[in-house]
Amino acid sequence: MDLFEAMRGRRSCRDFLPAPVSDEVIDKILEAATWAPSPLNTQPWEFFVITNRQIREKIFTEADRCRLWAFEKSGWKWLDSYDVDFVKEAPAMIAVVGDPKKTGVDMFMEEGNMGYQAACAAAIQNMHLAAYSFGLGSLWFTLFDKKAIREILGIEDTKVPLALVCLGQRASDIREVPRRPVKDKTQYLR
Amino acid sequence: MDLFEAMRGRRSCRDFLPAPVSDEVIDKILEAATWAPSPLNTQPWEFFVITNRQIREKIFTEADRCRLWAFEKSGWKWLDSYDVDFVKEAPAMIAVVGDPKKTGVDMFMEEGNMGYQAACAAAIQNMHLAAYSFGLGSLWFTLFDKKAIREILGIEDTKVPLALVCLGQRASDIREVPRRPVKDKTQYLR
Repeated sequence: MDLFEAMRGRRSCRDFLPAPVSDEVIDKILEAATWAPSPLNTQPWEFFVITNRQIREKIFTEADRCRLWAFEKSGWKWLDSYDVDFVKEAPAMIAVVGDPKKTGVDMFMEEGNMGYQAACAAAIQNMHLAAYSFGLGSLWFTLFDKKAIREILGIEDTKVPLALVCLGQRASDIREVPRRPVKDKTQYLR
Repeated sequence: MDLFEAMRGRRSCRDFLPAPVSDEVIDKILEAATWAPSPLNTQPWEFFVITNRQIREKIFTEADRCRLWAFEKSGWKWLDSYDVDFVKEAPAMIAVVGDPKKTGVDMFMEEGNMGYQAACAAAIQNMHLAAYSFGLGSLWFTLFDKKAIREILGIEDTKVPLALVCLGQRASDIREVPRRPVKDKTQYLR
């Protein structure tokens, strides 16, 4: 698939069909992730590929709990009725886990280890683009408590579950979400 | 260009030719950035396109100062002789600036506003892929003090310069930096 077609066509999908995603496609999506750049080529990512139904149900329960918590905390009305069923309905989910020790010079800076997160985010973007090129819908999901996800997946305390990437065939069309034009976002210093 | 060719072929470039990058190509790279996903479609990015030589020199001076600071702080020998001349030699540089207020539910969470950074990182990855498809080298550069870059570019205190993306034609070939195989990084929960 053409690069620009993928970047432009990718949408956040929240409605999946139950058809499984093949291991071959999952592995190509993960390989795409690993070609992202990282500070000093530390490759600070690890992946948990979750197709097990019980684990997906547990993650759903946690996501729904977190949604209610966030609703109470924020008062954002949409969170009251926001349906996170896609968390259990997506046939596959990839947890992207970052290792804060695998980072660059940022570890000496004020905000502390951040580069590993940027690298993992670049890897996740590659995953979305790859998924789209295989005709799959995907979602970058972060509405969870890190401690709870660590416990469910058996992740050590020193590592950080940064995102769950939900994957599967789209159950419905997704409208294009508009972007502000580049010129509204850009200053040119010539 | 094919998506996988771009993801696989992109390299971090630290050796640029002086030939300018056209406005048209810059704008296509920026448009690619804006198609990244963001929390609640907040599009938390802004861009400063820097081709002005004096500003590039100022940024170089800051990067080199930061390199020496990091060398002293870390004791990492490579930083002593690490040549950041590419910062002034790249004919164009795009500062990607994030707005921490434009983020999602993460603003109520323990680590605070982080989603905007992930979105900007995804946008930066799109920029690298787009640049590569136009035959350009690019670099994700973060060796700078945020306060100093704010001052040089006139960025308000509430916004965060997250990266400088150096852009230009490659002056030399870049060897492929190997990746650990996916299987070493992945657990399957079936």
